[in-house]
Amino acid sequence: PKSKLPEVGTTIFTVMSALAAEKKAVNLGQGFPDFACDPALPATVAAAMAADFNQYPPMTGMPQLREQIARKILDVYGHDYDANSEITVTAGATQGILTILLASVHAGDEVIVIEPAYDSYVPSIRLAGGIPVFVSMELDENGYSIPWDKVKAAISSKTRLIMLNSPHNPTGSVLNADDIAALTDIVRDTNVLIASDEVYEHMVYDGQRHESLSRYPELAARSYIISSFGKTYHVTGWKIGYVAAPAALMAEFRKVHQYNVFSVNTPMQVGLAQYMGNPAPYLELSAFYQKKRDLFRAGLANSSLRLLPCAGTYFQSVDYSAVSDMPELDFARWLTTEIGVAAIPVSAFYQQSKESGIVRFCFAKQDATLQNALQRLQKL
Amino acid sequence: PKSKLPEVGTTIFTVMSALAAEKKAVNLGQGFPDFACDPALPATVAAAMAADFNQYPPMTGMPQLREQIARKILDVYGHDYDANSEITVTAGATQGILTILLASVHAGDEVIVIEPAYDSYVPSIRLAGGIPVFVSMELDENGYSIPWDKVKAAISSKTRLIMLNSPHNPTGSVLNADDIAALTDIVRDTNVLIASDEVYEHMVYDGQRHESLSRYPELAARSYIISSFGKTYHVTGWKIGYVAAPAALMAEFRKVHQYNVFSVNTPMQVGLAQYMGNPAPYLELSAFYQKKRDLFRAGLANSSLRLLPCAGTYFQSVDYSAVSDMPELDFARWLTTEIGVAAIPVSAFYQQSKESGIVRFCFAKQDATLQNALQRLQKL
Ligand SMILES: CSCCC(=O)C(=O)O
Ligand SMILES: CSCCC(=O)C(=O)O
Repeated sequence: PKSKLPEVGTTIFTVMSALAAEKKAVNLGQGFPDFACDPALPATVAAAMAADFNQYPPMTGMPQLREQIARKILDVYGHDYDANSEITVTAGATQGILTILLASVHAGDEVIVIEPAYDSYVPSIRLAGGIPVFVSMELDENGYSIPWDKVKAAISSKTRLIMLNSPHNPTGSVLNADDIAALTDIVRDTNVLIASDEVYEHMVYDGQRHESLSRYPELAARSYIISSFGKTYHVTGWKIGYVAAPAALMAEFRKVHQYNVFSVNTPMQVGLAQYMGNPAPYLELSAFYQKKRDLFRAGLANSSLRLLPCAGTYFQSVDYSAVSDMPELDFARWLTTEIGVAAIPVSAFYQQSKESGIVRFCFAKQDATLQNALQRLQKL
Repeated sequence: PKSKLPEVGTTIFTVMSALAAEKKAVNLGQGFPDFACDPALPATVAAAMAADFNQYPPMTGMPQLREQIARKILDVYGHDYDANSEITVTAGATQGILTILLASVHAGDEVIVIEPAYDSYVPSIRLAGGIPVFVSMELDENGYSIPWDKVKAAISSKTRLIMLNSPHNPTGSVLNADDIAALTDIVRDTNVLIASDEVYEHMVYDGQRHESLSRYPELAARSYIISSFGKTYHVTGWKIGYVAAPAALMAEFRKVHQYNVFSVNTPMQVGLAQYMGNPAPYLELSAFYQKKRDLFRAGLANSSLRLLPCAGTYFQSVDYSAVSDMPELDFARWLTTEIGVAAIPVSAFYQQSKESGIVRFCFAKQDATLQNALQRLQKL
C-alpha cells in the first residue's frame, strides 16, 4: 500500500547536519547551540537520578515542574494557568504539536498554516486527517509579516485551527500588537482554535516584547501554547517541552498524550523544576542572543549577502541573489561543500518549495564559531 | 466539535496509582519497580551530560546505541538488523506503537487486536484512522492462549496489521513454537504487517524462551518489533525504547517519528549505549523476576485468590470470584481502599469491559513490599 506521507523525505535539518559533518563545515544549519548549558542544570538531573527519580512520572508531568511552568507564565505574561489541569509536559515541542493536532483535528477539517512554516506542521496535520490551507507571509523592507486579510479570507466553515509561530522560525519575525488585534478580530465569533508555537519566546530583540497569546485572555481561551526547555536552557537534546491550554482543551490533549508518549523523562523533569526554582535565567536570554545576532550581522554587513531583519529567534536569514541564482537547496549544499558553512534553505519551509533566494543561518554558536563562519563567508 | 477519542478517560494506571497514593496502599497496580536501578547506569548518563551530550541526537537515535541494540538482537535472537536503516530509538515503547500505527494504517484499514490488550493499542489505532477487529484470548487451566483459527477468520482484504504482545500484559502468557507456526501460516500469502510488542522480552520463566518474532525471518520480514529499556533496566521513567523493522518498513516509520518526537533524549542514549557495552545484565532478568514471582505466588497459594499461570512479564493475575462478585474495577478500588493493596482490573484491557473476576498484580517490587502486600491480602 502507499505511504501515509508519500511526499515526505528526511527532514532538511538531518540532511544538512549530515552534510555539514561530512564536509567538516561550520554547522549554522540545524538550530542548536554549540556551547554548554549551565553545569548546574545537569547536576540537578544527576541528583534526581541518584535520588531514585527513575520511574514513571504522572502522565501529565511532575507536579513541581508544572507549578514552575505556571509560575513562569504568570510572572512573564500575567496568565494564571492551573498547574493541574492546564499544563502538560511533553517530549519536546514537536511532540506537543502532533498531539494537539491529533487531539483536535478531525478528518476533513482545515488547518491554516502560515508559510514559511516549520517542517513538522504539515505532515502532522495530514497524519491527523486534516487539510492544510496555506497563507504566505509577505516580505518587504521591514521583513516578513502576516497578511491578515488573507488569513481572514482563508477561514471557512471547515477551519478547525490556525497554526501560529512567534518568534518565527525561519524568518525571525515576531507578532506585534497590531497582529494580535487583527488575529483577535478574525477569530472572534468563530470556533477556530489556535496552536501557538512559542519555543523562541525568550529570544526577542531591540526592546520588543514577546506577544505570547497567553497575554490575551480572549485568545488564550482558544489556544494551545507550546514551548520548549531545550531552546531556553541550551539543551535541545533533552527533548522536553510543554503545552498550556484551558482545561477543556487540555483534557482532549491529554487523551492523546497518554497514548502517544504516556509521560516524559522523570529525572529531567525533577532537575528542571529545581533549576527553575532559582531566579529565572531565561530573562537574560534576549540580551545574550542579541549580542550574537549583532556580531553575526556586523560580520555580514559589507558582504554580498543581504541581511533580512531579525527581531527574534536564533536564526538570521539572508538573501543571496547577488551571489548566485542557484535554487536554495543547491545553494545551501554548495555553501556547505565549497564555502564550509552549512545553512538551511528557506524553501524547505514551503510546501511548494518557493524559491526566493534566501537561506537561514543559526547564530546560537560560540563567538569563535561565528567568527570562523564569517571568515569563510567573506569568500563570497 | 466532538472529541477525537470520545470513549477515552484517564488510563487505568494513572487512576489506580493516584488512588494507591491517596489511600497509602501498597501499589501493585501500575507496572514499575519500587527498587533502584544499577547505580552504574545513572552514572553513565551523568557523565554524558557532563561531557556536553546535551544537543539533538540524530533523528534515528545515537549510532552507538543503535549498534548495541543490533548486537543484542543478534546475540539473543540471531537476527541481524542493520543498525543504520532498521533500528530507531523511541521515547518509550508507547510512542513506538503509535508511530507504527500512524505510519502504516490508512483510514478504514483493519487492525487485529488480541484481547485483553494494553490500553494504548485501540486509541492509537483509532487515531491512525484504523478499525480495530477483536479476537479474545481463551482461558483454561493452562492459562490464556490465542485461538488462531479465530485470528484467521478475522483477517479480511482490509486487514493491514496484527497487533501482538508477548510476553503478554496483563495475562503473563507467552507465545510458544506452536503459536509461531500458526501465525506464520496465517500471514503467509497476505500483505498483513505485524507489530510485536516485546517489552517484557527478558522476563520469561521456567526455562521457556522468548519467541521474539525476530527469530523467524519469514515473520521478521513483515514485523515491527517494539522493546523498552525502562522495563529491562528498572528505569520506567526514562521513557526510552526502540523499534526494529526491515528497512522499507523502518523508512515509513521514520517519516512519522521525525514529526512526532523528532529524536530522543541524547544523554540517556549515550549512557545506555555505554552501559549496554558491558556484559548484558538483561540475561539475568528472568531469574531475578522468577524469584519474585515465586515468592508472590507462594504467599497466595493458600489464599482464596486463585492464581492464574504466569509464564512471563512482571504481572500475576488472580481470579477473585471466591472472594467477591464485585465487577473488577469496583473490586480493585475496594482492594486498594479496604485491604490496602492496589491492583489493575483486567477488564480495563477489554474494549467492552469484559467481566471475568480477575485482577492483575505487579510483582516488580522489593521482597519486603511483596511481603507487606501478602500480609494484607491474607485478610481476604
Ligand atoms: C528538530 S531539528 C530542527 C531544529 C530547529 O528547530 C530548526 O533548525 O529549525
Ligand atoms: C505507562 S503506565 C503502565 C505501565 C504498564 O505497562 C502497566 O502497568 O501495564
